[in-house]
Parts: sequence; structure tokens; C-alpha cells
Amino acid sequence: MIKIVLLGAGNVATHLYKGFKKANTVNVVQWYNRNLKSIETYKNEVKITDNVNNLIEADVYIIAVNDDAIPELSSTLPFENRLVVHTSGSARLYDIDQKLYRGVFYPLQTFSKAVDLDFTTVPICIETLRKKDFKLLETLGQSLGCVTYKVNPKQRPALHLAAVFVNNFTNQIYRIAHEITEKQGAEFDILKPLITETARKVQEVSPYIAQTGPAKRNDKKTIKRHLKLLDNPDQEAIYKLMTESIKKTHGH
Amino acid sequence: MIKIVLLGAGNVATHLYKGFKKANTVNVVQWYNRNLKSIETYKNEVKITDNVNNLIEADVYIIAVNDDAIPELSSTLPFENRLVVHTSGSARLYDIDQKLYRGVFYPLQTFSKAVDLDFTTVPICIETLRKKDFKLLETLGQSLGCVTYKVNPKQRPALHLAAVFVNNFTNQIYRIAHEITEKQGAEFDILKPLITETARKVQEVSPYIAQTGPAKRNDKKTIKRHLKLLDNPDQEAIYKLMTESIKKTHGH
Ligand SMILES: NC(=O)c1ccc[n+]([C@@H]2O[C@H](COP(=O)([O-])OP(=O)(O)OC[C@H]3O[C@@H](n4cnc5c(N)ncnc54)[C@H](OP(=O)(O)O)[C@@H]3O)[C@@H](O)[C@H]2O)c1
Ligand SMILES: NC(=O)c1ccc[n+]([C@@H]2O[C@H](COP(=O)([O-])OP(=O)(O)OC[C@H]3O[C@@H](n4cnc5c(N)ncnc54)[C@H](OP(=O)(O)O)[C@@H]3O)[C@@H](O)[C@H]2O)c1
Repeated sequence: MIKIVLLGAGNVATHLYKGFKKANTVNVVQWYNRNLKSIETYKNEVKITDNVNNLIEADVYIIAVNDDAIPELSSTLPFENRLVVHTSGSARLYDIDQKLYRGVFYPLQTFSKAVDLDFTTVPICIETLRKKDFKLLETLGQSLGCVTYKVNPKQRPALHLAAVFVNNFTNQIYRIAHEITEKQGAEFDILKPLITETARKVQEVSPYIAQTGPAKRNDKKTIKRHLKLLDNPDQEAIYKLMTESIKKTHGH
Repeated sequence: MIKIVLLGAGNVATHLYKGFKKANTVNVVQWYNRNLKSIETYKNEVKITDNVNNLIEADVYIIAVNDDAIPELSSTLPFENRLVVHTSGSARLYDIDQKLYRGVFYPLQTFSKAVDLDFTTVPICIETLRKKDFKLLETLGQSLGCVTYKVNPKQRPALHLAAVFVNNFTNQIYRIAHEITEKQGAEFDILKPLITETARKVQEVSPYIAQTGPAKRNDKKTIKRHLKLLDNPDQEAIYKLMTESIKKTHGH
């Protein structure tokens, strides 16, 4: 049985709590948050606290708080030589105080408290200094049903940056499509199957192979017609830049 | 039974042929292509021809050739006052010769000959001049299992443009993520569940609601760190532009 203390009560901590609760080989022995309000509803099933000095012993302490708060919170922990990990894609492993055994347990997925999550769709990127810590975190990830990956200090920030592209930037592309259709009184819903298919396709073939369309074909007439349709300068700038990017990738 | 003649033998025509073959209420009575090679394998199941003067009578003629070839091909058709439609998202209805009853039967999805297609995921955008032609095309779309939409000459080009965003531009965003991960020796595969989840989320909530991340939070520290990681000026330009776009949308 792996004993865990969770620190933080946001999107990630809350989903981790629920995930671990279902796992047979893991026990969340305590849950800390700087204010008790967000975790009070769980007080009948887990020990809760808002005081780091009351933290009890565990095999691993998982800090799931804002990136900026990781150094300070880890430095106030009243013990040393225990495994403490954060869940951030971009904070450094060394942001955790050096009195501790440090690690990263980064779930590369988008979490919202309000949205149910299937942990089998969550890849966990693990970084540690000690081999035995890696093994423990790997077991922990597997207990949630996750696929785990060993990453290094160069790979994790690259993955986090790439995640911003495929999640935030893609979503903003959807947003612009929404604006374009809405403006002409067309239904955004009509685009939804294409959104699904575009994401599905790259599960099987590379984005390079999957590409089609006017930019790849360098179909100047269609590109010109599209630019004429766009009267929003920001949308136009994105159209031009993405079209140039595709043309470069595909050798025009 | 609706009698159809198909013109063209590319991605769209080939999938339409296969789809109609399975439909009970539709009969492809002839298949035309300018060269017979691409349709020869079907000659035992359907009449084929490479000569427009041999075209036989049908309820609807579906032109699925390159956008640029639609005006010429339609003008060479040796009949008038019959329903002729094209399948393009951007060609005009009036690109079809005026001697004919004109229409558009635009499947808003990505087609590749080599990739199997489930027509229930294909929305069909229909544009006609005559009400009875709309009814016929609607029945035709439904016979494939498609959801059909009535669109007007402003909506269809907007949908086509929006489709370029959610398909081609999104795919290029995936491509850049692939480049970023590859450069640091990280696996693009780790991003695939996030790609799926990002597309799934906007099936239920608007892209505006679905947005998260450093640009939306205006998290300057993370944005700065990301820009430092990007040493490719094209990727950097896209990062900046998409970040600005998100910030504007979300009121920073
Ligand atoms: N959300 C995602 O999709 C996602 C995905 C992967 C990784 N992550 C990472 O996971 C971590 C948590 O993200 P989240 O989305 O769960 O954040 P969140 O929902 O904003 O929750 C943040 C938590 O941190 C606590 N906190 C903030 N400042 C603190 C401080 N100075 N001292 C102590 N606690 C503090 C907050 O306490 P209060 O309840 O008192 O405000 C809250 O419980 C971050 O490192 C993030 O980068 C997030
Ligand atoms: N592919 C998609 O994802 C998609 C989606 C929605 C709508 N569309 C629209 O569907 C139409 C066809 O696209 P596609 O992807 O099927 O194209 P495609 O695979 O490139 O096939 C084009 C077809 O047009 C024929 N053709 C080209 N020039 C011609 C000419 N001057 N005269 C007669 N035939 C000519 C070609 O004949 P040969 O076999 O002799 O070369 C070929 O059969 C276009 O209007 C396109 O905008 C495509």
C-alpha cells in the first residue's frame, strides 16, 4: 500500500484524490489545503488539514498547487529526506526544496474540477533524481490506470509547450472558426464532425501525412478568396501565418 | 429510386460511389471520368464512360472534380434543364452552366481515397435554386446516413473557410507540436490523448468556455519561458500571435 499526502485542492488535486480513492494499492492518508473550505466535504473519508506542521508520514507528498507556490510550500514542509513531487509541466524539479527527495508527476491532460475524467486517457510524465523514486511514481501512475513515461528536464518543458499548442492554440483555432461561422449565420455544429476527424486522423498517421487543403496545394485562388472573406485583421494575420507555415512544411 | 450519374473519380467521387452503392433508394446508373483508368475496376458493377456525349438520363448529375474544372465540364454537358450539382465548399453555384438546374452538395468532411469513411460523420451542406431540387438532395444525403443542412451563398464559403481553420490549421498546429517534441527527443505520442480530449471538449461546450492555459490566465512568466524554448522564428511567430489572440478573446 502506497501512502500519499495530497497538497492543494484545485483541479488536479481533486481529480487525483478521486482517482486514488478507486485504486486498491494506494491510500491517501491526508489532504492539505491552505484553506479547509474546498476539502471540508471530504473530511469523513480522509484526514484534512490546513497546517503543514500537522502533516503525517507518507511515502510520497504530491504538491498540486500553482506553479509559483511550489518553492515556498515545499520549503515550509517540516521534514526532510522524504519524497515530494509536484504535478507541473513547466516548474523545475529543483523548485522543490533540496532538503527533500524531489520528483515530478506531471499528468499531461487538461483537468477541470467540473468535468469527469477518465485516467486511462492521462499520460503521466515522471522525473526523479533517484531510481527508486521513479519506480514508486511509476507504480502510482499505473494504479490510476495511466500510461507512464520517464522524461528528462529537457523533454518535460518541450512537452508542456507542445501541449499548449495542441490544446490552447487548437482551441483558439476552434474559437475563430466559431466566430467566422456565427458571423455568416452558419452553425458551428456543422464543423464538429470535422474537428473530431482531424484529431482522430493524427492518432494513426503523422500530422505531416494527414495534411490537405489549399495551403498544402498552394491553391492561390482559394487562398485569395478566403483572405477576402476575412475582414477581421487578427483572423487574417493568423490565416496568413498558418498558410505560410503549411507551405513551408510542404515545400512551396 | 433516385438515379445518379457521378462525374469525376477522385477522393469524393469514389467515397460517394461506395456510399450510394450501400443505399437502398439510390442507383448510380453511370460513372464518368475524363480517363477510364481510375474507374475501370468498377466496370462490372456500373456503366463507365470517358465521353460526356454518352451520358445517360438521371435525376441528378454529381460533379466531383477540381473546383477549377467545374465551369468547363458543366458547359460541355450535352443536355439542359437537368439537375447538376457540384461538391465544392468554395466554388459558386453559378459556376455550373446556366442551361442546367443548379445545386451544391457539399460534404463538409475530409476525404481520402485510401481512408475508410463513415458517412454518418459527414454533414452535407445543400444549396439549390429550386425547392424541389433541395428536397431531392436532402433525400440523397439522408440515403447515405448523413445529416443535411440547408445553406445559402454566404454561409457555405464561411463554412469552407472555417473548415480550413479547424482542419488544415489545427493539423499544422499538431505538426509544430510534433517538431517541438521531436527536437527534445520526447514522444509525440504522449500528446495524442490531449489532442483527442481537446476535440472532444468542444463537442459539448463552446471553445470560449473550453479555453485554459497560460495565455488565458495571462501568465507572463510561463509565456516568457515558452518563448525562450522556441528557437524557430516561425514557431515563435505563431506562438506570439495565438497567445495574443487568446488574450484578446479573454479580455486581457
Ligand atoms: N489544470 C490542468 O489542466 C493541469 C494539468 C497538468 C498539470 N497542472 C499543474 O497542476 C498544478 C495545479 O494546477 P490546478 O489546475 O489544479 O490549479 P488550481 O485549480 O488553480 O488550484 C490551485 C491550488 O493551489 C493552491 N494554492 C495556490 N497558491 C498557494 C499558496 N501560495 N500556498 C498554498 N497553496 C496554494 C490553491 O489553494 P486555494 O484552494 O486556497 O485557492 C488551490 O488549491 C499546477 O502546477 C499546474 O501547472 C494542471
Ligand atoms: N477531398 C476532400 O476532402 C473534399 C471535401 C469536400 C469537398 N471536396 C470537393 O470535391 C471536389 C473533388 O475533390 P477531390 O478531393 O475528390 O479531388 P481529386 O481527388 O483531386 O479528384 C479530382 C477529379 O477531378 C478530375 N478532373 C480534374 N480536372 C478535370 C477536368 N479539367 N475535366 C474533367 N475532370 C477533371 C480528376 O480526373 P483524373 O482522375 O483524370 O485526374 C479526378 O477524377 C472538389 O470540388 C473539392 O473542392 C473535396
